[in-house]
Amino acid sequence: MVKIELPIIAINFKTYTQATGERAVTLAKKCEQVAIENGVTIIVAPQIADIYRVSSSVDIPVFSQHLDAGEPGRFTGHSLGETLLEAGCSGSLLNHSENRMQLADIEASVRKAEHLGLYTIVCTNNPLVSVAAAAVNPSAVAVEPPELIGSGISVSQAQPEIISGTVEQIRAVNKDVVILCGAGISNGDDVKSALKLGSQGVLLASAVAKSDKPEDVLNDLIAPIK
Amino acid sequence: MVKIELPIIAINFKTYTQATGERAVTLAKKCEQVAIENGVTIIVAPQIADIYRVSSSVDIPVFSQHLDAGEPGRFTGHSLGETLLEAGCSGSLLNHSENRMQLADIEASVRKAEHLGLYTIVCTNNPLVSVAAAAVNPSAVAVEPPELIGSGISVSQAQPEIISGTVEQIRAVNKDVVILCGAGISNGDDVKSALKLGSQGVLLASAVAKSDKPEDVLNDLIAPIK
Amino acid sequence: MVKIELPIIAINFKTYTQATGERAVTLAKKCEQVAIENGVTIIVAPQIADIYRVSSSVDIPVFSQHLDAGEPGRFTGHSLGETLLEAGCSGSLLNHSENRMQLADIEASVRKAEHLGLYTIVCTNNPLVSVAAAAVNPSAVAVEPPELIGSGISVSQAQPEIISGTVEQIRAVNKDVVILCGAGISNGDDVKSALKLGSQGVLLASAVAKSDKPEDVLNDLIAPIK
Amino acid sequence: MVKIELPIIAINFKTYTQATGERAVTLAKKCEQVAIENGVTIIVAPQIADIYRVSSSVDIPVFSQHLDAGEPGRFTGHSLGETLLEAGCSGSLLNHSENRMQLADIEASVRKAEHLGLYTIVCTNNPLVSVAAAAVNPSAVAVEPPELIGSGISVSQAQPEIISGTVEQIRAVNKDVVILCGAGISNGDDVKSALKLGSQGVLLASAVAKSDKPEDVLNDLIAPIK
Repeated sequence: MVKIELPIIAINFKTYTQATGERAVTLAKKCEQVAIENGVTIIVAPQIADIYRVSSSVDIPVFSQHLDAGEPGRFTGHSLGETLLEAGCSGSLLNHSENRMQLADIEASVRKAEHLGLYTIVCTNNPLVSVAAAAVNPSAVAVEPPELIGSGISVSQAQPEIISGTVEQIRAVNKDVVILCGAGISNGDDVKSALKLGSQGVLLASAVAKSDKPEDVLNDLIAPIK
Repeated sequence: MVKIELPIIAINFKTYTQATGERAVTLAKKCEQVAIENGVTIIVAPQIADIYRVSSSVDIPVFSQHLDAGEPGRFTGHSLGETLLEAGCSGSLLNHSENRMQLADIEASVRKAEHLGLYTIVCTNNPLVSVAAAAVNPSAVAVEPPELIGSGISVSQAQPEIISGTVEQIRAVNKDVVILCGAGISNGDDVKSALKLGSQGVLLASAVAKSDKPEDVLNDLIAPIK
Repeated sequence: MVKIELPIIAINFKTYTQATGERAVTLAKKCEQVAIENGVTIIVAPQIADIYRVSSSVDIPVFSQHLDAGEPGRFTGHSLGETLLEAGCSGSLLNHSENRMQLADIEASVRKAEHLGLYTIVCTNNPLVSVAAAAVNPSAVAVEPPELIGSGISVSQAQPEIISGTVEQIRAVNKDVVILCGAGISNGDDVKSALKLGSQGVLLASAVAKSDKPEDVLNDLIAPIK
Repeated sequence: MVKIELPIIAINFKTYTQATGERAVTLAKKCEQVAIENGVTIIVAPQIADIYRVSSSVDIPVFSQHLDAGEPGRFTGHSLGETLLEAGCSGSLLNHSENRMQLADIEASVRKAEHLGLYTIVCTNNPLVSVAAAAVNPSAVAVEPPELIGSGISVSQAQPEIISGTVEQIRAVNKDVVILCGAGISNGDDVKSALKLGSQGVLLASAVAKSDKPEDVLNDLIAPIK
């Protein structure tokens, strides 16, 4: 399994125009520069069609936004772990709120990723779902209350009890899983409060991917951890 | 919440011709007779369109085969908890292998059912998925290795370690959830071994629902528990 | 196949609280009374769990809100044509905007319904999708621009060209399919303009199902056709 | 819109190990060589994660195996037209039997592809579904009876009436759409009979993608058209 140093700043490029194709490469390079200059962990998750060109251009971890369960063979349009690995992925988001998965497929995808040495971040929407996700032993769980995604309101500041409560409940069943939080994270203060509440990193998207000055946003985000 | 005495024999009518419409009522009455005569718990899960006529005819618990998450209002073709309750349901199967659900929807359906006093049985396919299901606090989890469903090979006899291992792993995170097992259960010996391995009941379908003599099968099934 | 006299007023009960359980029966009886008193066709589409109690109480056509493709046997939580027929259905909505179906399943469901003598109304969102739906030979196609559903703005008055254009395009490939329109239909003027534009009926929901005085709404709706 | 010369030989790489990553590039180059040497049209459809590296390596048309409807922005794990275009795609398969789509999404994906100048091949499973697919005006329809996919039994030889009948029915509603056939196509005789029956090309997968000598298979396939 790829070793990812904590804490983690993970950037979901979604399907933003500003983070597509060659612009995905440019953005990933900016992430890499900030990561290397400051000795912090920044993960980038471009679109699946962009993984290869991004992973060929940067040395920071490149994640897929999704990974389908299933063995190589008769699937059409699916994104299997083996293929993502060959395309240069180090891991994958799973069960993002914009791409919810069946429970059995989450578990199967985590097992497949584990077998391939890929890191998994399972996204969840509330504390009990987070505990369930932790129960299938992914590398990490990322709690993202859906009502805050893209809101500009940070979960770590608006609903701190969601994070601290989730951390506590997850730890009762899984001592090792990495716990991230997401939704509305946009600056260093959000990251600072997220870490203070017991999470080990953040997952965010628009604040970086849609920014005119992603370097500035990234430098602000990593200020509390460098 | 409806109180269901343990151990549980739950019969999924699926969409078997022999267990549809008026024949669902007849089969449910046979289940009721065996349940009452022997003082055992038999739950019947007819098709959603048959719930009302079955629940109007018997006094044993009638379950839905599925329950959609969601509030009353703008849904078409969905089966909401409020409607199932008014149709006479006492509970619902969730996430059956033939009707897999997204993790977030399993949790939302369990919460909704809980709020309405409906009993929930979440079906699962392996130990880790069972622990994940238990983590969202349903009334019960039913472990059913998919390869044995409808096989005539009993999970409790063919893969006893699946059941005992699952029981142990679930209990580490949830002391209260009822644990059932399914897949290939067809006679009293299967039930006996299932209970001996730590489960608190069984979920089965074809052995009863497709039988020419369901009373005989039921009497055999309940022999170890009456 | 059940014979449905044109024009058609079809009422989707959705999952409205006011149209659930015993209240579904009450509402269906009001629809029946208006239909019989005025010699017009009113179809009611209650929730699947309510079909049996509604169909046992009224003599107007009762439709399902959905019909799953598939043969009797190993399905759990699905609503097959055979079961809906035994529960008293005369037909089914298919592909409602709140329950979109795969193209291959729409066709399979239409074939199954046809085989069972069930009437099918395939809902669609725009002219080309309507032509595609007509190509699989259902009994009827109901055009419902999604942005107008539940809006109170009638498609027949706000976007008359959608209806007239759709009618023309459908007729180029299918002379026989019944063409309905929906979305925002709430009164007799909407029905009148819908018919004038070439449709043969309407599909509506909230204006009747959520009304305090559904008889009044129904009487207004049928005024242009009685 | 990209201009694709008829007849078409389209190769779906599926998720075959032999056609993944660098091996996808190698296979695409063999397809390119046969296409150029013989002046025939060969389209390759690698996995989405492999599109960029394949399209960067060959000059024949590279298609996606799937294209999600939707505008750039808040989607995670989806494959939008804009991104596929930037990754070097000329078109996409849609609604493959291993990735069935909702009717409304097929139409929306075709419109989006059309707007971007991408070629679309909608896969279908029988004649009426083919007519429905043709009604939404894609570039092409590919009829593939699911029971023959991967069977080694050619649809053009085993079920010639499926192809000739489908061609006739499609032409009644759409004069321009390209008609392909698939399922079990593995050699030049299959291609010859397919073209004779009125189709304008073939869609195949395993015969080429899993072959030890794909050049030989390709040369056999294109013999009737070079």
